[in-house]
Amino acid sequence: MGSVVVIGSVAFDDISGPGGSASDILGGSATYASLAAAFFAPSRLIACVGMDFHASAVEKLKGRGVDVSGLERLPGKTFRWSGIYTPGFRGRETLSLDLGVFNDFKPSLNGPLPKGTFLLLGNIDPDLQLAVLDQAGSSAFVAADTMDHWIKGKRAALEKGLRRTDLFFLNDSEAELLTGETNMIVAGALIREMGPRHVVIKKGEHGSLLFGPSGVSALPAIPLEKVKDPTGAGDAFAGAMLGWLAKTGANDDESLRGAVARATVMSSFVVEEFGVNRLTELTQAEFDARLNRLRDLVRF
Amino acid sequence: MGSVVVIGSVAFDDISGPGGSASDILGGSATYASLAAAFFAPSRLIACVGMDFHASAVEKLKGRGVDVSGLERLPGKTFRWSGIYTPGFRGRETLSLDLGVFNDFKPSLNGPLPKGTFLLLGNIDPDLQLAVLDQAGSSAFVAADTMDHWIKGKRAALEKGLRRTDLFFLNDSEAELLTGETNMIVAGALIREMGPRHVVIKKGEHGSLLFGPSGVSALPAIPLEKVKDPTGAGDAFAGAMLGWLAKTGANDDESLRGAVARATVMSSFVVEEFGVNRLTELTQAEFDARLNRLRDLVRF
Repeated sequence: MGSVVVIGSVAFDDISGPGGSASDILGGSATYASLAAAFFAPSRLIACVGMDFHASAVEKLKGRGVDVSGLERLPGKTFRWSGIYTPGFRGRETLSLDLGVFNDFKPSLNGPLPKGTFLLLGNIDPDLQLAVLDQAGSSAFVAADTMDHWIKGKRAALEKGLRRTDLFFLNDSEAELLTGETNMIVAGALIREMGPRHVVIKKGEHGSLLFGPSGVSALPAIPLEKVKDPTGAGDAFAGAMLGWLAKTGANDDESLRGAVARATVMSSFVVEEFGVNRLTELTQAEFDARLNRLRDLVRF
Repeated sequence: MGSVVVIGSVAFDDISGPGGSASDILGGSATYASLAAAFFAPSRLIACVGMDFHASAVEKLKGRGVDVSGLERLPGKTFRWSGIYTPGFRGRETLSLDLGVFNDFKPSLNGPLPKGTFLLLGNIDPDLQLAVLDQAGSSAFVAADTMDHWIKGKRAALEKGLRRTDLFFLNDSEAELLTGETNMIVAGALIREMGPRHVVIKKGEHGSLLFGPSGVSALPAIPLEKVKDPTGAGDAFAGAMLGWLAKTGANDDESLRGAVARATVMSSFVVEEFGVNRLTELTQAEFDARLNRLRDLVRF
């Protein structure tokens, strides 16, 4: 079995929307991703927090087996994000964002990553992603996530990173922003030409598309009558994919398909509650039942 | 094997959008639906046209085995629709609409429909749909389609028809309009409570959802790099579903799932060209290849 290394943000979030509101909850791309990955394989978190970080939050991560030895505590405040979802979860607005200690974060891998490592560059500044890639060596499988903010403001660094990325995640509006294409099938192909062997376009309630050397595959999302908070669903999707790949130790097209299925299931749990609580309490039996649900969903 | 009876519009369309433009082409909900149904089973068309209707258009229908004995020729002009698709095919605006002979159309079934008949009430005035239902008797399987226009303007008649409908088709924005729900899983359940045993919510490029007594199933759309014209895709979807059900002679949950898969494939061909030409030239080999593509698409 391989292992997963996740670089990204650990944050406190204030969230409101159609599903209600919650404040001061543990969030951040690396939090969701490392917890999701740890469900399948050893998962190491590389991030930073401020002096205000709760010990209980660290325990949540450790309790699910996440290796937090790379979680640095720096003078200052933990990254804080406040956002609101519009009706029907159709859009999201950032109300405030305070990078806090992330302003001075210099992620360190402590040397090149061995073969069998699945590195996830979570949604952070593409320059930071590049700094991590420079340390990682060439043996690890590299996956990266991003967001509209970086596509608009740091395209050159983003594109440089893409050429060194094996698997790239983005959502449909980001794919349109990056390529100028409204047809996601064309957009996925164009992004593959920018470097990544595999591309996943996440479409929320509409599921996802996977692009690879053998073509396109597609899965719907798990039908959910109640959605409370989509925050972190994309991060958990990415983390679950890498966790599954690490567990199987493979990165061929077939393994990627299997990983997308597990990621689809994992992210369906995340949106049912605010924060990471659904993730930290998830049982194998619950997961397996929903994976069977996904198989049944597309059967004909 | 059963057979399909389709009531709806036969029209001439002027269409423009991101895929180009075409004018004076054969269209209408019943045209697309009866052609799609005829691919699988005997298909009878009940509609009206004006004195300006081309003989070549009738030949197109007959050439694919559609029974056009119920296509009445009335004094006046054929139904004419002109529409434009917005960028990315995200929306559609009606530029002009002339009902023509449809203003005076009194559809006639020539008596009750025998068991084994799959009746499709295409997207026409719900009062006309009810008039057909009154003639149909209680042996036929009844499917109905609609559009935002009727949901807004003829809700009472629409709801009356729904109570006598076995399978109801609508797209996601229509489902929201009808139920006030943005969550399509909830919306589908609410619409089932209005009468239909089965409901299909069509989501265009995102595929479709099928709701029935045994729960929800979902399939993605066939990935297409080129879309020219989505007009008629929903009608062909409905027609293909009924054609497949008629071919199998069944209407249980499993058969409905199989029908949605065939409908997904059929509608993917329709959007590749303006009008019905892709439908009228479709071969069994092409269809089978794409059905295999759909199976492969969701495999994991």
